Amino acid sequence: MIKVGIIGVGTVGASVANILEDNFDLITARAGKEIKVVKGVVSNLSKKRDVNIPLTDNIDDVLDDPDIDIVVELMGGVEKPYEVVKKALANKKAVVTANKALLAYHRYDLQEIAGDIPIGYEASVAGGIPIINALKVGLSANQITEIKGIMNGTCNYMLTKMIDEDVDYDTILKEAQELGYAEADPTFDVGGFDAAHKLLILSSIAYGIDAKPEDILIEGIEQINKEDIAFAKEFGYAIKLLAIAKKDGNNISLRVHPAMIKKSQMIAKIDGVMNGISVIGDKVGETLYYGPGAGGDATASAVISDIIEIVRAGQSSPMLGFKKPFNSEKLTLSPAEDINSEYYLRMSVQDKPGVLAKIATILGENSISIDTFLQRSASKEKVATLLCATHLSNEKDIQNAIKEIESLDIIKKSVAMVRIVR
Amino acid sequence: MIKVGIIGVGTVGASVANILEDNFDLITARAGKEIKVVKGVVSNLSKKRDVNIPLTDNIDDVLDDPDIDIVVELMGGVEKPYEVVKKALANKKAVVTANKALLAYHRYDLQEIAGDIPIGYEASVAGGIPIINALKVGLSANQITEIKGIMNGTCNYMLTKMIDEDVDYDTILKEAQELGYAEADPTFDVGGFDAAHKLLILSSIAYGIDAKPEDILIEGIEQINKEDIAFAKEFGYAIKLLAIAKKDGNNISLRVHPAMIKKSQMIAKIDGVMNGISVIGDKVGETLYYGPGAGGDATASAVISDIIEIVRAGQSSPMLGFKKPFNSEKLTLSPAEDINSEYYLRMSVQDKPGVLAKIATILGENSISIDTFLQRSASKEKVATLLCATHLSNEKDIQNAIKEIESLDIIKKSVAMVRIVR
Repeated sequence: MIKVGIIGVGTVGASVANILEDNFDLITARAGKEIKVVKGVVSNLSKKRDVNIPLTDNIDDVLDDPDIDIVVELMGGVEKPYEVVKKALANKKAVVTANKALLAYHRYDLQEIAGDIPIGYEASVAGGIPIINALKVGLSANQITEIKGIMNGTCNYMLTKMIDEDVDYDTILKEAQELGYAEADPTFDVGGFDAAHKLLILSSIAYGIDAKPEDILIEGIEQINKEDIAFAKEFGYAIKLLAIAKKDGNNISLRVHPAMIKKSQMIAKIDGVMNGISVIGDKVGETLYYGPGAGGDATASAVISDIIEIVRAGQSSPMLGFKKPFNSEKLTLSPAEDINSEYYLRMSVQDKPGVLAKIATILGENSISIDTFLQRSASKEKVATLLCATHLSNEKDIQNAIKEIESLDIIKKSVAMVRIVR
Repeated sequence: MIKVGIIGVGTVGASVANILEDNFDLITARAGKEIKVVKGVVSNLSKKRDVNIPLTDNIDDVLDDPDIDIVVELMGGVEKPYEVVKKALANKKAVVTANKALLAYHRYDLQEIAGDIPIGYEASVAGGIPIINALKVGLSANQITEIKGIMNGTCNYMLTKMIDEDVDYDTILKEAQELGYAEADPTFDVGGFDAAHKLLILSSIAYGIDAKPEDILIEGIEQINKEDIAFAKEFGYAIKLLAIAKKDGNNISLRVHPAMIKKSQMIAKIDGVMNGISVIGDKVGETLYYGPGAGGDATASAVISDIIEIVRAGQSSPMLGFKKPFNSEKLTLSPAEDINSEYYLRMSVQDKPGVLAKIATILGENSISIDTFLQRSASKEKVATLLCATHLSNEKDIQNAIKEIESLDIIKKSVAMVRIVR
């Protein structure tokens, strides 16, 4: 009998306990041993919870219990769970966590501290989709040349609705909050930070590269408006919040930002709250993984898959997938200004002669050539909207051009930009 | 240093040897040990091959070599490779195989013979997509309620072209043969047998059920024609060759047949030679796996992922994923006549009064109610085509009705039927 302690019995924790009970016979047959949750830690003991496990409000009741083999960390936060996981490892307990923020900051520390003690974290990226396992095991023969992921269901739900139903950002955010898809403070999701944490985890398995959220470009979806959506639809694009890892020689580019992508790409077909990750390996080509990125049962499915694997096998490879260091000292994280992309720009300008010429001149002087140009006038306010898509350009040039355009007195508000990703 | 012998150095075998060389540093870092192909077995030594490994035409040079740790079986066939793999296991060598036919017939025998010796077979289903690993590990907490797979690239290429370019079956088969996507004798692919072998492998991991190709319904795509395609397009369906496993209580339904599926389903969006498998777990919901189902490098990517996993970990679970038997004695394979589905029927009839009434009467007498009815007349030949889609009906009733309709003297050729899958 394998004994499990859960620290944090919220939606996911309760699902873990309940699924281990619901599918007990099946899981026992797959794992080879019975698995039982013997203790759950909560901060508020008086709150009613839908689980049949003994509860405590003292974390050490789990960490110091010599009978407990596996600790499931579902607390949230960074530094507190880090201390908790370290203590669990010191007490020789295997750990399973769904905590992407913890891993975004401390995955290499934890790998070192853990040594041979297994740490599972399948649930930390894209909920119920077994993408960690696919990267660690299924694609291990490949140099990963690119990862493009839709890994935040809140953003994907909002962007899908904006495209399908022509609603604006504020309306759909409010709806997502009412449905429980978005938090009261939605910054972590809509600002791209959640997706960035997940990207950092995947990039460690793909490249053995240690980067922190502060090191990479993170832009959210807050500035996407109806005009951008209309432009995307007109030219056959979907708009998605993408987390992108790209390898070019020894340069690794990691970034999270909204992107226009051609509707024919598989990744563009992933709609609503669903998540999907396209991975390109140098040998296998593109494989794609699709499924629910959140939700109690879906996330618990991933947590339990880690528990079962630990029971069956211990850990088949070090936490982050490399048994020996792999030229990570040679890898460089490319600065955002090295991005080459096509760009979509939206500008609100005074509707008067000479405006277009001024903007076109600035773009030209910054080596940016234009692929598509649309002008829409809202004459009563004497304000026109200019929408344009560029040919392949350099990020630095675009940023310069935007700065120069924004300094013009004909510009009514700041320029909006969305990268077009092939 | 881990030493590998490859039996069968065709396209996939050569890719295995070459990728292990190309990505040697990366694979060494991931596996923790150097992996080298030391011998390859071919039947014709004089044929020029694009590999840098010593070749022999004697299988025992690999099987009896005490230095070889892992045998990669890529011979094709069933009984001969079965003997080869048994001997490799008897000599305590781990085995990696891409041979779905071998596994369709002998997977349980091999699991028993192997005991603790690892057998990897990720490459046997859907080429480069790590679906075996996803089912064995990633979804292990779930009762698998349904698998719907597009697992034959030849059929998917042909059906996609028929829909997109309005070409007929014979033309597109010829084109697929010229492109190397279809064999000179295409029966194994277009007849659904290849997909059936893969389905049987997946159903063992999902349910622990031992079935053989002879035990399940297998229908190919040979009868799909332009009228079916036109009907599907008109009513918003894609036509795909689906391999389906479905659990309903203790009844497991396994079948391979062409299916009309609503275009909004993710599985319907998988086009061309690509493969995709949708898996529904009772807890996680739907996850889907997409990628190349064939090709030397893609298949080799899966073969090598097995090799790396064997080097890192031995085998984390028994070959077919269950450490202990799981109520498989209680599971029953449902007979095909228990299928409940909507059905599409195509009939060529004499274009004269009373025909429709006769057919409608037969359908009604067999408890089949009609959802959609289309009649297209080709008046010069006095032959009309009737196309219809039914409401939910029972397979036995449909088969009876088809038999009765075919016995009518107004019918010009046999009735074509495609199941509509939700």
